[in-house]
Amino acid sequence: MQHLRHCQGLARVGLLGTQRAQLLKDVAPAVAACAGPLAGRWQRRGNSSNDQSGQAHSGFNPRWPHLLAGLVAGTGAVLAYGLRNSQSGQERIAIEPASQSSIEPVSQSSLPVYTQEEVSRHKNLDDGVWVTYKGGVYDITEFINMHPGGDKILLAAGGALEPFWALYAVHSQEHVLEILAEYKVGELNPEDRKRQQKVSDASDPYSTDPERHPALRINSAKPFNAEPPPQLLTDSYITPNALFFKRNHLPVPQVDPKTYKLEIEGLPKGSVSLSLHDLKTRFPKHTVTATLQCAGNRRSEMNSVKQVKGLNWGIAAISNATWSGARLRDVLLAAGYTPEVAAKARHVQFEGLDRDVTGTTYGASIPLVKAVSEFGDVLLAYEMNGEDLPPDHGYPVRAVVPGTVGARNVKWLGKIVVSEEESKSHWQQNDYKGFSPSTDWDTVDFKSAPAIQELPIQSAITTPAEGTSVDRSMEEVTVKGYAWSGGGREVVRVDVTVDGGKTWHIAQLQDSEKGQEGTAQTPPPPTGQAWAWKLFEATVPLPPEHQELEIMCKAVDNSYNTQPDTVAPIWNLRGVLSNAWHRVTVKINEDSEE
Amino acid sequence: MQHLRHCQGLARVGLLGTQRAQLLKDVAPAVAACAGPLAGRWQRRGNSSNDQSGQAHSGFNPRWPHLLAGLVAGTGAVLAYGLRNSQSGQERIAIEPASQSSIEPVSQSSLPVYTQEEVSRHKNLDDGVWVTYKGGVYDITEFINMHPGGDKILLAAGGALEPFWALYAVHSQEHVLEILAEYKVGELNPEDRKRQQKVSDASDPYSTDPERHPALRINSAKPFNAEPPPQLLTDSYITPNALFFKRNHLPVPQVDPKTYKLEIEGLPKGSVSLSLHDLKTRFPKHTVTATLQCAGNRRSEMNSVKQVKGLNWGIAAISNATWSGARLRDVLLAAGYTPEVAAKARHVQFEGLDRDVTGTTYGASIPLVKAVSEFGDVLLAYEMNGEDLPPDHGYPVRAVVPGTVGARNVKWLGKIVVSEEESKSHWQQNDYKGFSPSTDWDTVDFKSAPAIQELPIQSAITTPAEGTSVDRSMEEVTVKGYAWSGGGREVVRVDVTVDGGKTWHIAQLQDSEKGQEGTAQTPPPPTGQAWAWKLFEATVPLPPEHQELEIMCKAVDNSYNTQPDTVAPIWNLRGVLSNAWHRVTVKINEDSEE
Repeated sequence: MQHLRHCQGLARVGLLGTQRAQLLKDVAPAVAACAGPLAGRWQRRGNSSNDQSGQAHSGFNPRWPHLLAGLVAGTGAVLAYGLRNSQSGQERIAIEPASQSSIEPVSQSSLPVYTQEEVSRHKNLDDGVWVTYKGGVYDITEFINMHPGGDKILLAAGGALEPFWALYAVHSQEHVLEILAEYKVGELNPEDRKRQQKVSDASDPYSTDPERHPALRINSAKPFNAEPPPQLLTDSYITPNALFFKRNHLPVPQVDPKTYKLEIEGLPKGSVSLSLHDLKTRFPKHTVTATLQCAGNRRSEMNSVKQVKGLNWGIAAISNATWSGARLRDVLLAAGYTPEVAAKARHVQFEGLDRDVTGTTYGASIPLVKAVSEFGDVLLAYEMNGEDLPPDHGYPVRAVVPGTVGARNVKWLGKIVVSEEESKSHWQQNDYKGFSPSTDWDTVDFKSAPAIQELPIQSAITTPAEGTSVDRSMEEVTVKGYAWSGGGREVVRVDVTVDGGKTWHIAQLQDSEKGQEGTAQTPPPPTGQAWAWKLFEATVPLPPEHQELEIMCKAVDNSYNTQPDTVAPIWNLRGVLSNAWHRVTVKINEDSEE
Repeated sequence: MQHLRHCQGLARVGLLGTQRAQLLKDVAPAVAACAGPLAGRWQRRGNSSNDQSGQAHSGFNPRWPHLLAGLVAGTGAVLAYGLRNSQSGQERIAIEPASQSSIEPVSQSSLPVYTQEEVSRHKNLDDGVWVTYKGGVYDITEFINMHPGGDKILLAAGGALEPFWALYAVHSQEHVLEILAEYKVGELNPEDRKRQQKVSDASDPYSTDPERHPALRINSAKPFNAEPPPQLLTDSYITPNALFFKRNHLPVPQVDPKTYKLEIEGLPKGSVSLSLHDLKTRFPKHTVTATLQCAGNRRSEMNSVKQVKGLNWGIAAISNATWSGARLRDVLLAAGYTPEVAAKARHVQFEGLDRDVTGTTYGASIPLVKAVSEFGDVLLAYEMNGEDLPPDHGYPVRAVVPGTVGARNVKWLGKIVVSEEESKSHWQQNDYKGFSPSTDWDTVDFKSAPAIQELPIQSAITTPAEGTSVDRSMEEVTVKGYAWSGGGREVVRVDVTVDGGKTWHIAQLQDSEKGQEGTAQTPPPPTGQAWAWKLFEATVPLPPEHQELEIMCKAVDNSYNTQPDTVAPIWNLRGVLSNAWHRVTVKINEDSEE
């Protein structure tokens, strides 16, 4: 069997209980001699006899001493947790035995079972490169140099392949799976991870936050805020869930879908309560592809003018997904909304189930006219790209308000209130508003500006990346990026320049997964309902006699709004709404001219 | 009587027929000696004996020899027409006797009767300054220096006071009328003007165009395109009809309101025809205050980058009025529109009754979703600022499409077609579209860009005017202007700078006739229905050590779109969508510091 290729030495040792203990004794000294620090780690583990499952497997591949780390994988959550804590400077070895009921059925595979923790320690060539795919663990270190897509493969190191393969559909071929199979070294034990979470410090409100994809660039761990590498962003029209930017204000709440209730208040009939089942069965399932963008996307560029308050987002606090759920309009109508309500009410407030230590929940509101418009496409979404919403994205139900700043797309939605007033939340009243460049923290009056709803026209260059090089011999540079506008305004043109704006090149636009605009089978969105971004690409001749290239882009939407030229005049103390022309500087590598 | 004050010498001579002829002989030599060219003009007139009415009056004020021009006023349309043509280099003396039926009842006033032609020759201090008011003719030359509003009064010279007094409500006081009465020198004979029009060259399709206000700055006479002086624009939240910018593509059609029919096609029920009476009585009268802006507003700034094709508009091809009429939505519903229609149709085409020599009518279309939206406020308007639509603005019925470029607000509306397709007209297909700065007439593909509908955020400075001076001793400068955005997006802030953008001053906004924002009694417009501009004003300290001041403004709307910094990157071959920061340079006058 091909997948046994790596298991010819000591490898592929499937042993039970005491048998494994004996093996560990036998191999430990030799391993310690060649595995360096990993051997030490292994020894500490080896001292423990706390084997929860009693049925785990160990694997050993003599060609990669680091694989020893996997040798004792499966000794259970307690050990792994102790290790994790010792890595973060806490030497406490934890305790709580898992209850029998939480132990999953034994894997029938003869390969060792690894925790995600084990896997994620293998994410470079020194430690080896492990990945997971559909529950299997693969050591692909040897394959790195053979990967047709180059070292982009390293972005998956230590994590799951699925989001990358979703991004690069070329992998959906049988021979790719055959190649992968050759590198299988074990099975992933997700249950261990669950147990680790249970025994982790209960005082940390973030302890139950879900696992995240290792490729994400973390701006804040608690609450979790992270963006994907920009180059990945534009390799796929639809952003895979795992790579979709994460913007949490509070810990991710644990919501039981069986007991979940959505409360609706403020309508003449009185309160209404809907279960997840109600939302899925009583209303038509409506699907919308919509781009969400954080108000703080590209904030780092404002920081380069003058320091602002807020997470230092790059250009990737924006992503695109296909969302499905009940239309808010349909739900409100069923709950008793009539046009007469609009004579008084002006807003629809959303309240999340995520809460801070005082019990205050996240909240925001949108204009009623947006909520009830038959063209507004506001969803109470329960699916993201065809799957249940991931925990980070609002499981089980979130608001998706197409064309509107991310902050109003309230996740883990617990309550909807039709109201005369906007949400009283901090995030509606004293955050997510735009101000003049001359307004500072001494003079700011948050009442003087409207809460951000629709966002302005935006675009940014994802390829080439800042600081990289292009070869002179190529004679041209291919520039890629994204463009989007709020309010359902369709992007109609992106201009790219490499000569400081003397000449502008009109980029080609991609408005679906299928390819260039016009070649897709899908008709263009109706006026005012262009909720999804367009990806752009322009191939531009390299200007002569330049050693450095400043590439700039600007987009235009169908209300012919354009991006401002520069950052300073739109600078604001919260660093939101950063949508000046995007600029990337790259070197021109002259070597290849010789 | 006070109004006789100016009539004490030879003045106030009211004579009939042959009596006047004798007077002319008597005074002519003396007048010729002191009146220069006017005397010659008078002599040519004096040679004619063609006196149509036989009942006109002459007036003479010895203090202003130029008044001789008025001495023979009232000799009828033929003479006046002959004079007009000789002024434009055509010496033809015309002919056609007016029919008895067109002769109006004789004025019972004892003052002379003047043609508008006579009046309009008096529009500077050299020739004297005449104005008309409610049918009276006033020589206000002596009053100019006493006018509390300064020499702005000269903008009314040679024309009617009414639009200016509508603009400056301070004149609505009895004592103002008393002052005016002192300067009365005659009566206006509007019938003469009508007769002049009848005898004018019948081959000129513009011969029946209406009279226009003399203060308008004409960009094109035929078709008539003109804008008001910018400083006037922001003295009134509502632009008086006579000063509202005029943008005609073709001659103004003569439409008989009694036989007027509006045809509606493309709905399942078949064609529907509505009279003006139907529109006024079968549908609720809906009133909307909406700003209209020509796509070419501020085109002159693009010309200063590189020549474009189009009328050289300044900053005042924008105005604000209150429109009343039937809602297009109501009319379409009554004509058989149902939501099912929207499954196929996407556009509503408008066809004007104005046509070129080939019979081609003006046409444009708007998205169906805008036309039928209960929040779209699209009107079939028959009133402008409480009056019947003026001929230049579409009498008897026009489309008013709030938030949408002027070109889609079709005037003299003859037909509406609900359609799968946009209007096939030149103006929809091959004009009024935006392109990249690098697109030229050799490369332009009009199919590649969407027809302009909603316009982007806009603002401009009306005061101080370019090239004027401010006094150093004032220590500050008051900057006024307008700001507006398309698509019902509300202007939320205007920033003004006088130091090149180092510091920005937040202007105060006026969102109604009543005054500053917040002080008005009217509630703010609902989200997405902010159709009217805001006027702004900022008082900014003069920076030291500058002899020249560049004042710049930029506006922000509630989708937080902003204006681009500079013109060149938005330059386009048609010179439309010119909305970069507006810049005005003024001198700082240091004299008053001494």
